[in-house]
Amino acid sequence: MTSRPTLLIAVTPALVNAVAGPLRAAGLNVLVHGQDAYAPEQIDYALSFRPPRGLLKSLGNLKAILSLGAGVDGFFADPELPTHLPLVRFVDDTLSQEMAQYVVMQVLLHHREQRMYDGAQREHRWAQQLLPRRTEDTRVGILGLGEIGMVCARHLRALGFTLTGWSRSTKTVDGVKSFAGTEQLDAFLAQSDVLVCLLPLTPDTRGILNAVTFAKLPKNAFVINVARGGHLIEDDLIAAIDSGHLSGAALDVFQTEPLPASSPLWAHPKITVTPHIAAISDPAAGIQYVLRTIAIIERGETPDHIVDLSRGY
Amino acid sequence: MTSRPTLLIAVTPALVNAVAGPLRAAGLNVLVHGQDAYAPEQIDYALSFRPPRGLLKSLGNLKAILSLGAGVDGFFADPELPTHLPLVRFVDDTLSQEMAQYVVMQVLLHHREQRMYDGAQREHRWAQQLLPRRTEDTRVGILGLGEIGMVCARHLRALGFTLTGWSRSTKTVDGVKSFAGTEQLDAFLAQSDVLVCLLPLTPDTRGILNAVTFAKLPKNAFVINVARGGHLIEDDLIAAIDSGHLSGAALDVFQTEPLPASSPLWAHPKITVTPHIAAISDPAAGIQYVLRTIAIIERGETPDHIVDLSRGY
Repeated sequence: MTSRPTLLIAVTPALVNAVAGPLRAAGLNVLVHGQDAYAPEQIDYALSFRPPRGLLKSLGNLKAILSLGAGVDGFFADPELPTHLPLVRFVDDTLSQEMAQYVVMQVLLHHREQRMYDGAQREHRWAQQLLPRRTEDTRVGILGLGEIGMVCARHLRALGFTLTGWSRSTKTVDGVKSFAGTEQLDAFLAQSDVLVCLLPLTPDTRGILNAVTFAKLPKNAFVINVARGGHLIEDDLIAAIDSGHLSGAALDVFQTEPLPASSPLWAHPKITVTPHIAAISDPAAGIQYVLRTIAIIERGETPDHIVDLSRGY
Repeated sequence: MTSRPTLLIAVTPALVNAVAGPLRAAGLNVLVHGQDAYAPEQIDYALSFRPPRGLLKSLGNLKAILSLGAGVDGFFADPELPTHLPLVRFVDDTLSQEMAQYVVMQVLLHHREQRMYDGAQREHRWAQQLLPRRTEDTRVGILGLGEIGMVCARHLRALGFTLTGWSRSTKTVDGVKSFAGTEQLDAFLAQSDVLVCLLPLTPDTRGILNAVTFAKLPKNAFVINVARGGHLIEDDLIAAIDSGHLSGAALDVFQTEPLPASSPLWAHPKITVTPHIAAISDPAAGIQYVLRTIAIIERGETPDHIVDLSRGY
């Protein structure tokens, strides 16, 4: 064990700029992939999000891999990912809070018909009307009731919505009806007036938001995807909205990012497109997470949020 | 005391349609002003929002006046309002919840820069950026920290914002810094990055959202008015936004309602206009409130939310 752990950072230049200085100032020996020269065996820890293929395998003395995001599908895209090492997800309050803010905002924009009122404003038209559906009769289904999903569910329930959640194994969350496993997915979908996707992206969940799934939602259901673009078959969503079955969608993630200017999603009148900003890792929170995680491992303890490599999340 | 209390309803035809039947079905003797013939002395209770001038004074045996809204300025517009009678405000969970949903949505639309992202979507432009201000550094000031204001404050605090409140007398709300009285108004304004007006409309508060007030807010502050149009000097707001001092506003209430098509507010790019829908009295909740209030008075007890006629709210 070295007295000053050495961390290799392999992230975008913007994030390097935001985190390298403070991590050095906090006492880490920081090296930036593609910028600093280093010997692979020097590296104790690696911080990345979507590492270059083979990079992690080349680091023979690595103690742990740190993800700068809550999702780790970027690591599994590397077929040479060293699976014997602990891979630690970045789950922090700021990230959950930002995601919850975004989900609450999009649920309210839909529930309160703000997009209709935006249209009426453009026409200088006073379009006062009652809520089309009472809040307590509006069922929000969280597809992926993990740590972030539970935070979203709590806020939405406090605002009066009826909450359900689906996950691999049954979760117990106050006031949230929990469904689990493949055999309960249809029952969950059938009662989701608003479907919020917060799933991890794995081979099992890739493409889960498709025509078959949409057909199982109640008529006029609204879809929010804040997980990964890989969950959604974009053409199926457009078809389900254009057929009148779904009332609309809010999407923060896409099959290709940045979303190409030619995508039909941009101009769809019932789809809100945002550029993967639902929960942007706050650099300050990311720095604290890196320092905390490395300190825990250096003490010989086990950090929280280690990825189960057999499940892929 | 009659065994079946007689209620006179003087509200808009749409609301009459929504409430008269269920109130009759619940056992009240219901008469509709302008529709049914009645002798003034028959009437035990009157339900209104903005009663015709002199109507209430003409009802010699009235036991109480029920407002179908949380604001009672519509009653004070009647110079012949009988001030010896209890005037009961409609404060219920549905109304507070709807108002809180609207306030949370507008605060998030501002904080999360959703209007900028809407603009980028229209241009098919991927405009990813970090939050311009951290949530905990964003101070939301509730001008009018009453029952509804406290509900709004609780939700916003749970979402990570820093909350302050101002009211006539000091209120104690967990996690909300409370300011009170005229002498603390300037200090309150100076730390409100988002100012939410939830005040009752009284001679003291009429026109309180004016150029002098706006100048005391921090630069780039955002204003949300969900109280009454009479609180806001609309021209002063436009001037404060156009000068670059304020960043924008969301308005649900106006000096003249419906807002005339000629109003410059409709087309202002930094102002969201909604048609007084932040908290539309839910007919079902209104019916329960009327039945509950009359039952309490018939038992000889005193209902909550009686208006202090000396303060006007």
